[in-house]
Amino acid sequence: MKYCSNCSKSIQLKKIKDDSIPRYVCDSCGVVHYQNPNIVSGCIVYHENKVLLCRRAIEPRRGYWNLPAGYLENGESVEEGAIREVWEEAEAKVDIKYLHCLYDLTHVNQVYLLFVAALKNKQFSCGVESLEVGLFAEEDIPWKEIAFGSTTFALKRYFSDQKTAFTNVHIGGFPAEE
Amino acid sequence: MKYCSNCSKSIQLKKIKDDSIPRYVCDSCGVVHYQNPNIVSGCIVYHENKVLLCRRAIEPRRGYWNLPAGYLENGESVEEGAIREVWEEAEAKVDIKYLHCLYDLTHVNQVYLLFVAALKNKQFSCGVESLEVGLFAEEDIPWKEIAFGSTTFALKRYFSDQKTAFTNVHIGGFPAEE
Repeated sequence: MKYCSNCSKSIQLKKIKDDSIPRYVCDSCGVVHYQNPNIVSGCIVYHENKVLLCRRAIEPRRGYWNLPAGYLENGESVEEGAIREVWEEAEAKVDIKYLHCLYDLTHVNQVYLLFVAALKNKQFSCGVESLEVGLFAEEDIPWKEIAFGSTTFALKRYFSDQKTAFTNVHIGGFPAEE
Repeated sequence: MKYCSNCSKSIQLKKIKDDSIPRYVCDSCGVVHYQNPNIVSGCIVYHENKVLLCRRAIEPRRGYWNLPAGYLENGESVEEGAIREVWEEAEAKVDIKYLHCLYDLTHVNQVYLLFVAALKNKQFSCGVESLEVGLFAEEDIPWKEIAFGSTTFALKRYFSDQKTAFTNVHIGGFPAEE
């Protein structure tokens, strides 16, 4: 951020009254430009004893498997965002059941909110951001080809929860990965 | 948003490839300026059978009672943000116990994440954004002077949960209020 999006003049990082963090403030019109974390919402979609994974067609981690998830948009609820992402990546319709996990990726200013959701029918196909989409039982998950450590965290806890009927929310945080 | 924060030239709202929503795109440097919801994190702080409320010193709803909560900052986890907000508004230290609720205020592009947290000692005082801070038992909550309907939602469910030992997450959404 170098220029004011309100008036196009230069901005400076400065301390403002009663605020603990320096902010980008416009030298000319005085508008304060706050920068805050983004929400990534998505689903662990299940059908019988299997979960839906998408092989990424985009960077980062192109070619690796992931849960369908993406940035929440203005004007939609977290659940609506999660449902939309499943549709965009896997062309599947789902019923959200409960919130599975909340985890922070503070190094990229992202907060993940993943729901457990039932596949509405057996239909799914490859969305524009995916190379391949499939249903996997626990023993068939390609653990070495999962895109992110946080995805492994969510999947491991999901399968573990199935054995204990645990439906409370898992909270975690992940540092930058290798 | 009228100008590009990267190069100061004019921007236009336009459809971009493989994206379902029009975005602000710079005519000159081509940078896409995404706009996404913000997270508000906070706590229902309890001590014995009482909860901590802060009377707002700032608009909107100045003079009304609220739970300590505020915008999550870049580089902090949701729990860290919630703990910081309690400190800033009520000068209280807390131990977070579990996630209480997730609710969407889509009309202002906000997602609330509130935790239940124990007051670490009996100490609290009036932070710079508060006019007054106090501990209230359920029967003493000033229900008609609560700042937002969403706060009433969170408090009602908290007290109800105490009677049933329910600790799962409440999910909801709130439209614009009168």
